[in-house]
Amino acid sequence: MTQAKNSKWFIDYLTPEEGHIHGIKKTLYSGQTKFQAMEIMETGSYGHCLVLDGKMQSSEVDEFIYHEVLVHPAMLLHPAPKDVFIVGGGEGATLREVLRHKTVNHCLMVDIDEEVVRMSEELLPEYHAGAFHDKRTELAFTDARRWLEENDKKYDVIIIDISEPVEEGPAYLLYTREFYKLVWDRLTDEGTIALQAGTTANGKLLNLTAVHKTLQQVFPHVVSMPAAIPSFGLPWGFALASKKNDPKKLTAEAIDKMIAQRVAGELKYYDGEAHRHLMHLPKYVRKAIEEQTIIIEDNAPIFTYN
Amino acid sequence: MTQAKNSKWFIDYLTPEEGHIHGIKKTLYSGQTKFQAMEIMETGSYGHCLVLDGKMQSSEVDEFIYHEVLVHPAMLLHPAPKDVFIVGGGEGATLREVLRHKTVNHCLMVDIDEEVVRMSEELLPEYHAGAFHDKRTELAFTDARRWLEENDKKYDVIIIDISEPVEEGPAYLLYTREFYKLVWDRLTDEGTIALQAGTTANGKLLNLTAVHKTLQQVFPHVVSMPAAIPSFGLPWGFALASKKNDPKKLTAEAIDKMIAQRVAGELKYYDGEAHRHLMHLPKYVRKAIEEQTIIIEDNAPIFTYN
Amino acid sequence: MTQAKNSKWFIDYLTPEEGHIHGIKKTLYSGQTKFQAMEIMETGSYGHCLVLDGKMQSSEVDEFIYHEVLVHPAMLLHPAPKDVFIVGGGEGATLREVLRHKTVNHCLMVDIDEEVVRMSEELLPEYHAGAFHDKRTELAFTDARRWLEENDKKYDVIIIDISEPVEEGPAYLLYTREFYKLVWDRLTDEGTIALQAGTTANGKLLNLTAVHKTLQQVFPHVVSMPAAIPSFGLPWGFALASKKNDPKKLTAEAIDKMIAQRVAGELKYYDGEAHRHLMHLPKYVRKAIEEQTIIIEDNAPIFTYN
Amino acid sequence: MTQAKNSKWFIDYLTPEEGHIHGIKKTLYSGQTKFQAMEIMETGSYGHCLVLDGKMQSSEVDEFIYHEVLVHPAMLLHPAPKDVFIVGGGEGATLREVLRHKTVNHCLMVDIDEEVVRMSEELLPEYHAGAFHDKRTELAFTDARRWLEENDKKYDVIIIDISEPVEEGPAYLLYTREFYKLVWDRLTDEGTIALQAGTTANGKLLNLTAVHKTLQQVFPHVVSMPAAIPSFGLPWGFALASKKNDPKKLTAEAIDKMIAQRVAGELKYYDGEAHRHLMHLPKYVRKAIEEQTIIIEDNAPIFTYN
Repeated sequence: MTQAKNSKWFIDYLTPEEGHIHGIKKTLYSGQTKFQAMEIMETGSYGHCLVLDGKMQSSEVDEFIYHEVLVHPAMLLHPAPKDVFIVGGGEGATLREVLRHKTVNHCLMVDIDEEVVRMSEELLPEYHAGAFHDKRTELAFTDARRWLEENDKKYDVIIIDISEPVEEGPAYLLYTREFYKLVWDRLTDEGTIALQAGTTANGKLLNLTAVHKTLQQVFPHVVSMPAAIPSFGLPWGFALASKKNDPKKLTAEAIDKMIAQRVAGELKYYDGEAHRHLMHLPKYVRKAIEEQTIIIEDNAPIFTYN
Repeated sequence: MTQAKNSKWFIDYLTPEEGHIHGIKKTLYSGQTKFQAMEIMETGSYGHCLVLDGKMQSSEVDEFIYHEVLVHPAMLLHPAPKDVFIVGGGEGATLREVLRHKTVNHCLMVDIDEEVVRMSEELLPEYHAGAFHDKRTELAFTDARRWLEENDKKYDVIIIDISEPVEEGPAYLLYTREFYKLVWDRLTDEGTIALQAGTTANGKLLNLTAVHKTLQQVFPHVVSMPAAIPSFGLPWGFALASKKNDPKKLTAEAIDKMIAQRVAGELKYYDGEAHRHLMHLPKYVRKAIEEQTIIIEDNAPIFTYN
Repeated sequence: MTQAKNSKWFIDYLTPEEGHIHGIKKTLYSGQTKFQAMEIMETGSYGHCLVLDGKMQSSEVDEFIYHEVLVHPAMLLHPAPKDVFIVGGGEGATLREVLRHKTVNHCLMVDIDEEVVRMSEELLPEYHAGAFHDKRTELAFTDARRWLEENDKKYDVIIIDISEPVEEGPAYLLYTREFYKLVWDRLTDEGTIALQAGTTANGKLLNLTAVHKTLQQVFPHVVSMPAAIPSFGLPWGFALASKKNDPKKLTAEAIDKMIAQRVAGELKYYDGEAHRHLMHLPKYVRKAIEEQTIIIEDNAPIFTYN
Repeated sequence: MTQAKNSKWFIDYLTPEEGHIHGIKKTLYSGQTKFQAMEIMETGSYGHCLVLDGKMQSSEVDEFIYHEVLVHPAMLLHPAPKDVFIVGGGEGATLREVLRHKTVNHCLMVDIDEEVVRMSEELLPEYHAGAFHDKRTELAFTDARRWLEENDKKYDVIIIDISEPVEEGPAYLLYTREFYKLVWDRLTDEGTIALQAGTTANGKLLNLTAVHKTLQQVFPHVVSMPAAIPSFGLPWGFALASKKNDPKKLTAEAIDKMIAQRVAGELKYYDGEAHRHLMHLPKYVRKAIEEQTIIIEDNAPIFTYN
């Protein structure tokens, strides 16, 4: 018999006709930053969760999936990343994963919303794990695109860790061909990038497929990686792009060896076998990518449901 | 801004503290069979859906994922399956996929609940696509375990397509070591089986890992295959077991070649590349399987949340 | 401990931030008429319910409250009503209550939506109880306002039994000063009218108070009657207006005597004591009426949340 | 079109099959006291709300209805109440209303849950309005029944302001014949009492009718008063009992005169006309009371849904 023990629920609307619901055990923070509505809540299934504009961003229980898939394939595809740039990165878990890499000596994280970073630092210590205070870390609170436009320093890896492109928000200009071209210009010769690209659910593939095709306008190597993050309520996908090295060619053995040499601590999601899982897509996703003709541009953006 | 346009919602509780919600456009059928509550509804995101005891079983939009992953790896792992047995199979889509295989000349489907089969036949034609009336099809409405106990005929492939083991239902005796041993006895020398094994979400892996370990008590080759079915609200997993052939050794090329030769029509989810995706698990799932010590037995069953 | 046993729920949104939810046991009908979305569902608490455009209209369990309060005060305020006109009336329960009055020899019900009437006739027999086939009944399916404009016959009582005035619907022109003037013209000398006027919840009194003030532009005697209908989720109010007789002057004894003489069968909500309850409003409702300055007119309508 | 703008909802389950939902704007407090789960939340429709064990207790927007109906009829039925005892009273609004009465020179409030009182004092100043610090106020945090058993001082009015009798809580022993007898013993000659008695919704009248009949075992004058509190989601009722004076005999004029003389400040719900509304019940409620045969006793308690 189905039973609901909770009287407070967070409804994460995925479309106007579908959502994932979470029993709320405790609300740690609820407020409005200069850019978005922000909540930190403890849910029954997923522990401490960060919710922005009514959308689940990260949960204590499964954020390791999101952040390991976002960070490690891009980092290991580069032979020895020293300088890393994080676009966004809010709660600090992307930074935490980047700093595990022993080759890194500098990581700049540029997030437009300082309040999200400050509140996460205080209330979500299990996410950043002290990464904000690592001596290799540099933080800036401004528009990452403008920052990259105004500074011509180059990076080995650029991780784009931002919300989905919604109509009201500024994030949609971080999903365009022009932006990816700017990213290309700020990458060193073997530079790589990674980003979350939306759901892989059939019938809802617009964002992932258009991002894939748009990246292919700029980068020679682009893969979409399917990774399920349970708290998101729908299967998810990540894009990985590279100037020179092909991620499909990395064997499980090569990945495992690099992890042993270059990454501190124990990973939970990613290893050689997981890499092979990520490098192969279901047929319907590949077909949808092939058939996609939309290229996202500054003056022809796409928006996802909010 | 999040908006809900629907006034009627189906809440699929995944745990007492989590669920997936579906806006209901139309209820085609709602009743109580001798064994379970049954509903056929049209939802906003997933079209016609079969819901048993308040749990989503199949949706028009993504049932192809469930049924292709359940059927084709097991069928292609056998060199030339002629006789197939389906345990359960309700709405007829598993039967439909089995019958695509040109080698098959007889498929027996034994489902305990005739009303589910009859209502699906009438209201869900897109699921069975006429398979119930194929001349190779034989239907029986009885307890599949008893049927196998009382008949000693052998099959090349046995597909177990049943609900999760809930406390009130009879299905839990189809998840035990004793049942898998009976299945082994009813398989030919290169026989294979497949079943859905529950979610792969971390923290909710009890069922999948215990099924995996229990199967290993009987079969030399067992793999768990991760496949996201969006309408289920959580990532899902399937188990594949075999008497003789190792599914991990099948290359993408071999799979694609066999599909071209042996399967009628166009598959949407499964092909060689999808097979490689299915054959590799995230690290945390493998670790949970390794650490699992529970063997499911008739007098020590496990139950999932209902 | 709070528990929800249902997996299907009807959410009756009362505002964008508040609603009443009903577990659905069975959906008897779900469709779209020429004018509105119509559903007949069986809910756990309220039995068979009529839902139009996502709003609860009537429930099997408490429709007697709605229909007795709507009909009997207006009927008994007239000394001997023979001819009655029902504006709207959909499911037939208003007609049923009117026909209990032994003085009535003709009742014309004019509803714009024939499908609602026909489906209710078939699926909600406990609502109309055969009233559609009473020999005193006349049905017409057209716009009631136009009907009254085009026919100059007079009636003793006019019951207005319609949905709330929502922006998309035609009902809002049945809430204006011009319409109430037309109604006045079609009433005999001691004529009375009644209608539902929306919630009496504080902070949500716009509709009830504006209707009250608008009626006072036309009728010398106007009262608002508070009557809770549990399935509506908010406390409710009805307006009663009269050309000549003051309903406040009717004693409990007079009401009881008239019911005994003039009404067939047993009433469940209304009698002399209930009349005294209905004739007295909480202070905050009277104050809100006094302070209301809006007069609803054809070119200055008001709309309620939908 | 129905739209939900909120992503966080409080579901107040009224039965397993029915509830009232509130969009949550802000959670001010969420915790577990020694006796119950306690939350203070800001909802979209009702402002600051106190929720205990998942049930709405009071809302900023309509608590005046609850507290005026609970306090003033009982206070004015006594000719000149000086000493008042409040059983429970948590957030301090009952105390606030008692202290408006100029005749009162001492009010003792005994609530078992000090944390509810302390958190309300801090976070709900609009509820107590400083009443906790009035020099006539005395607070004690202990079981009120035991307090009354151990102290034989008499009071002019005893207001019972407690949660509904749920199985897990201690409140159910404050609803029994034995407790009402104890209350009688602690009242002066013209003493009166009042309490909330549950919903007046038909089909859900067990609590209200049994309380009414149980009070009649002890008191010569008992009335049930119907008063809708919108945030409760169902129509509500209060019981008033008295040793000597009959509340039904108080005219509207007498009430208005007493309010002018004895009550400080402006009331919002209660006055002479509201008194007449409260003194008359719908027929079905009276009939249910008449037909009720249950007397609540310590060893035969009743429980309401939680």
